[in-house]
Amino acid sequence: MICEKVKLYENRDDVTLSTYILDDSVEMLDGGKKGAVLICPGGAYLYCSDREGEPVAMAFSAMGYQTFVLRYSVYNENKGVNTLEHIMPDMNEPWEEKEDVLFPGQLRDVGKAMLYIREHAEEWRIDMDKVALCGFSAGAYTSAMYSVYYDKPIVTDFLGIDAKGIRPAAAILGYTLSDYVSLMSVDPKENPLFGASIRAYTGKAQMEDRKQAEELSPCFLVNENTPPMFLWATARDQLVDPEHTLKMAMALNQHKIPYELHIFEDGPHGMVLGTYATAAWKDHLDTNLENWIHLADKWLQKRMAPEFNGDYQGF
Amino acid sequence: MICEKVKLYENRDDVTLSTYILDDSVEMLDGGKKGAVLICPGGAYLYCSDREGEPVAMAFSAMGYQTFVLRYSVYNENKGVNTLEHIMPDMNEPWEEKEDVLFPGQLRDVGKAMLYIREHAEEWRIDMDKVALCGFSAGAYTSAMYSVYYDKPIVTDFLGIDAKGIRPAAAILGYTLSDYVSLMSVDPKENPLFGASIRAYTGKAQMEDRKQAEELSPCFLVNENTPPMFLWATARDQLVDPEHTLKMAMALNQHKIPYELHIFEDGPHGMVLGTYATAAWKDHLDTNLENWIHLADKWLQKRMAPEFNGDYQGF
Repeated sequence: MICEKVKLYENRDDVTLSTYILDDSVEMLDGGKKGAVLICPGGAYLYCSDREGEPVAMAFSAMGYQTFVLRYSVYNENKGVNTLEHIMPDMNEPWEEKEDVLFPGQLRDVGKAMLYIREHAEEWRIDMDKVALCGFSAGAYTSAMYSVYYDKPIVTDFLGIDAKGIRPAAAILGYTLSDYVSLMSVDPKENPLFGASIRAYTGKAQMEDRKQAEELSPCFLVNENTPPMFLWATARDQLVDPEHTLKMAMALNQHKIPYELHIFEDGPHGMVLGTYATAAWKDHLDTNLENWIHLADKWLQKRMAPEFNGDYQGF
Repeated sequence: MICEKVKLYENRDDVTLSTYILDDSVEMLDGGKKGAVLICPGGAYLYCSDREGEPVAMAFSAMGYQTFVLRYSVYNENKGVNTLEHIMPDMNEPWEEKEDVLFPGQLRDVGKAMLYIREHAEEWRIDMDKVALCGFSAGAYTSAMYSVYYDKPIVTDFLGIDAKGIRPAAAILGYTLSDYVSLMSVDPKENPLFGASIRAYTGKAQMEDRKQAEELSPCFLVNENTPPMFLWATARDQLVDPEHTLKMAMALNQHKIPYELHIFEDGPHGMVLGTYATAAWKDHLDTNLENWIHLADKWLQKRMAPEFNGDYQGF
């Protein structure tokens, strides 16, 4: 396995792609191509969560995919944190000006990552028609936004390419946001984490107007070029209402985009895999919810399974 | 993740340990210790299989364990192969003298690997009371043999230590051999792969006598110090009779060693995970058999789950 952490922009240390490249073998695909999964952790645009990075990469590596963790643009230092105090800037003070980390920086980061993977596709034996996104929370939202913006000028003009070869084959969204219109009335004083997140993402504590909110809401932007999606969330999520997931499913349903949806009854926001691999305490374990990754595995196989090179010549 | 391939003996290139060390994070165990799994691929003592190495490590890494693949002593160059011709030396010609690669070299290699892991346990945050072995075919047999020999002089005298700290917490055996007495009558002309394997392992084409065969048969050697075992095989295995697995279960049962046993109906020898991650062709896929790794996951958790550091302080 080749594990490296590469900078996606020469002049920035914060946006990185961690690679987990499985060895080739004469016993298996023998140079044949694999699918890949690009993982976007959550973290409210304030940080990127460790729990939603490498452990998730391992789950997809175990399925036989080449995997990548993208630490995209966020307001704070781009590393895991374990308390709110570490990530919550004071809403009453002026924030640092950080143009790079505002929307659409995150979509461009995903585009840069897709391009980087494309540039190494031969070396890493990756089929570019089989590269999926997998995100959680703000990272799921970023994956959803990329899925509706990857072929638009804010991504393609920035990268200087056309959308061919950077289209995700699928997107897997865990407890995503999808509708910023419904969040226009959120009072940052009553909901400081949401307030800080919106400010980290847009530069302002609240949405300017409905037009801006719609432009930031993938559930309004699904179209015929949107890739298939696998959605999951928990009904008891107190931080991000599972309605965001349901609205995304409604939009996919209306546009006849292939999708799968699983809402599990229990579990707070941020369950990730629901197993010891991502648990910080016992409430992060759930033997029902942990099935989502196996459901996602079978769903991905429908579009990303490798092709065998004819009949087996071994023993 | 730290991925390295280290030599276990300064003067030999063939015996290596590949490490897959998960990152620590303040969001999870925050310096707390993890269990580990040491994987022994099969290959009839003629080679070490790629299919039974890294892809299996990924499956256990996905559970949150630190994982290792041991390429132990074998007769041929220690790499994956895809045809029998690559691994079958001519039985009618004299073989090269390779004292190092004969029994008990493999058990000593496992001991060296355990010691290497112990020497790095602090750095890699590994709880040495939670290090399991997982092997397949000849690698399962090696794991079984180590499980009954780890506290005997052929291992401890060689390493110059006592057995404390190199005892496996558990062993997971896929389509293992366990009874060489039953193989004494095998004619190497009729069964050239078995003949070559026995010669690669013992230096002779056939067992010398029943005493030697018993010393090489873990099903006769289970004792009160043998660790718990998870056994699985396929009923249709034409290469290694599943009777070897049943005999091992019988021995564990008689000695009241905790064990779990799963015999799946279908699948040839060498199914590994039964998924795309280890498949060379479609007959390596089986949606029933692929459950063994999830059963093994739950079984391992009973003895290897990490301990959380009190109540969650995050959000």
